[in-house]
Amino acid sequence: MASTVGKAAVAWEAGKDLTIETIEVAPPKAGEVRIEIYYTGVCHTDAYTLSGRDPEGAFPIVLGHEGAGIVESVGEGVTSVKVGDNVVALYTPECKECKFCKSGKTNLCGKIRATQGKGVMPDGTSRFTCKGKPLLHFMGTSTFSQYTVVSDISVVAITPKAPMDRTCLLGCGITTGYGAAVETAKIEEGATTAIFGAGCVGLSVAQGAVARKAGQIIVVDTNPNKKAWAEKFGATSFVNPTELKDGQTIQEKLIEMTDGGCDYTFDCTGNVGVMRAALEACHKGWGTSIVIGVAAAGQEIATRPFQLVTGRVWKGCAFGGIKGRSQLPDLVDDYLNGKLKVDEFITHRKNLDGINEAFETMKQGDCIRCVVDMRKE
Amino acid sequence: MASTVGKAAVAWEAGKDLTIETIEVAPPKAGEVRIEIYYTGVCHTDAYTLSGRDPEGAFPIVLGHEGAGIVESVGEGVTSVKVGDNVVALYTPECKECKFCKSGKTNLCGKIRATQGKGVMPDGTSRFTCKGKPLLHFMGTSTFSQYTVVSDISVVAITPKAPMDRTCLLGCGITTGYGAAVETAKIEEGATTAIFGAGCVGLSVAQGAVARKAGQIIVVDTNPNKKAWAEKFGATSFVNPTELKDGQTIQEKLIEMTDGGCDYTFDCTGNVGVMRAALEACHKGWGTSIVIGVAAAGQEIATRPFQLVTGRVWKGCAFGGIKGRSQLPDLVDDYLNGKLKVDEFITHRKNLDGINEAFETMKQGDCIRCVVDMRKE
Repeated sequence: MASTVGKAAVAWEAGKDLTIETIEVAPPKAGEVRIEIYYTGVCHTDAYTLSGRDPEGAFPIVLGHEGAGIVESVGEGVTSVKVGDNVVALYTPECKECKFCKSGKTNLCGKIRATQGKGVMPDGTSRFTCKGKPLLHFMGTSTFSQYTVVSDISVVAITPKAPMDRTCLLGCGITTGYGAAVETAKIEEGATTAIFGAGCVGLSVAQGAVARKAGQIIVVDTNPNKKAWAEKFGATSFVNPTELKDGQTIQEKLIEMTDGGCDYTFDCTGNVGVMRAALEACHKGWGTSIVIGVAAAGQEIATRPFQLVTGRVWKGCAFGGIKGRSQLPDLVDDYLNGKLKVDEFITHRKNLDGINEAFETMKQGDCIRCVVDMRKE
Repeated sequence: MASTVGKAAVAWEAGKDLTIETIEVAPPKAGEVRIEIYYTGVCHTDAYTLSGRDPEGAFPIVLGHEGAGIVESVGEGVTSVKVGDNVVALYTPECKECKFCKSGKTNLCGKIRATQGKGVMPDGTSRFTCKGKPLLHFMGTSTFSQYTVVSDISVVAITPKAPMDRTCLLGCGITTGYGAAVETAKIEEGATTAIFGAGCVGLSVAQGAVARKAGQIIVVDTNPNKKAWAEKFGATSFVNPTELKDGQTIQEKLIEMTDGGCDYTFDCTGNVGVMRAALEACHKGWGTSIVIGVAAAGQEIATRPFQLVTGRVWKGCAFGGIKGRSQLPDLVDDYLNGKLKVDEFITHRKNLDGINEAFETMKQGDCIRCVVDMRKE
């Protein structure tokens, strides 16, 4: 196999726009898969790393972690996917062999964690070259490229019946929120829930809460335009914390609305102050708060330990607690069977050469998800 | 029924020694029980309130919450205990009727919480009078008195076969630690555990871990004399965090000792820095840290949210998660059957008039529990 050539949106340095470049993508080595990416979402984590605020972010790099495409070639020993398969890239891999995968307690996989964090493939090198310089990989996926190479544990084949401009979104946001509700929290029927942040993740938590037949589903967002969105995804009420009266805090408001506090709360904002409010809005004795949002570097969550001693539980999850290779095909089925909303999240579309506009659009409140068509320039 | 007269150790004001006084104890009203207290333990929570650092502490008050005795009289409608019963006072009541008790998810009971917190009986008044002044109740128990009055949901009858100078300790420390291990954590066979603080509570967590067949039971304490204590209660290793080399933190040491972190950690110190270390010593993906210790007023716990997003769980419990009326008789049976160590905790004994010495003794590292004989002056 030979290198292939394609366009990619390259992040040359922090804080600058991406540049559309022609890059060389080396063939997959043993245990690796080269994917032709058809569609990618743009997510806040991409923007965070691009901003330079991520202390572990390094450049130049090919960002993107919410992508779908077709397997173009496979390296030696790859049996889990084959050329022509429709696939979704997985930034949370699943090797099914490590201590984590075998534990039955987590979806985190330890096998390639160290190299993925450094922006290289498991052998310590990159498959991307541009103008003679190697480019780093991102989250083991780098979906802002027409061709990418990933480890075979970082990809899952799904049915070709599902359109790829939709399934790409299952690579991060939707699965993260839906999984947090149905897999991590395992919300019980009739439970009271509050969701902080009505973006793609928060609205997906709401539809997970609907699927689990939650009683109250309260969506909290400072943007009044999100009320209609929240209702569309099944919220039973919407609270704007900037509109509370008499100095009432959001945790006090939620405790009042739920007769003592929520059974489950979800932070989908990445704001550590909101994470605290989410915990403190939980019901004494059993309320569980789940941190989903990613906070900025160095930021810390805090509360009085009395909150925990009196029975509240503070936990979190990545990718919703979903095991990508084992469970993502089921989520695609749920989508095809009308049980999981996906189309409704797509508010904007761009071509590859409009990807910087996709970042701008994302920062506006009326964008839930912008899908980028990687094959149109 | 009439008032009865007895001796009590009265806390007239914050920061001062207790004074042995003759007090009047009014008869139990409807739903109340008057107990002749035979033995009481002295616990750090008593010392904390006495110190004046507890912002909710009010004076004058009769402290004490770890007591055993015999029912002297009962008020109207009391059916759960009768005159002559051997009992243990319960600062965590159990009404079996409220939202909390019926939830099946917590041992916290909401029925008399508000009045208990204010230091009065459910009708809003006190049963204690000294020199014409009413004295406040403490934690619904006030065991530093030869006679006390408690709500009938704040007391449990136990077999008279168990000596009361031992069963008093099941009223707080031992049950709190043992329950945290067996009821709150439900430690699995082979699990790795770390326990911060080798006092009565921490050592009781250790014996709970032994009962649940934990693999590693690592006890952490800055007092080197606690090594022998830890081993006596089943610890598989002892770590003194002041003796770590090369600037290693205690969380790094524990992660190294357990190949990735502990399945369960327990804070039994009340120190918020230790609570953070206990969380961060947990295994990624599933490690659970349980806050047992009570922190000083205003203090907060903190960590990076990434600790939770990567699967660690922060929770806590009061009274070990044990429902006093439903479960304490079983713990007494475990003691009588040799499954639960109690005698071994008693390092010191005092008579009522030596109770201030008991407080001094408790602050020394070689005291695990000091039992006060309330009937000897």
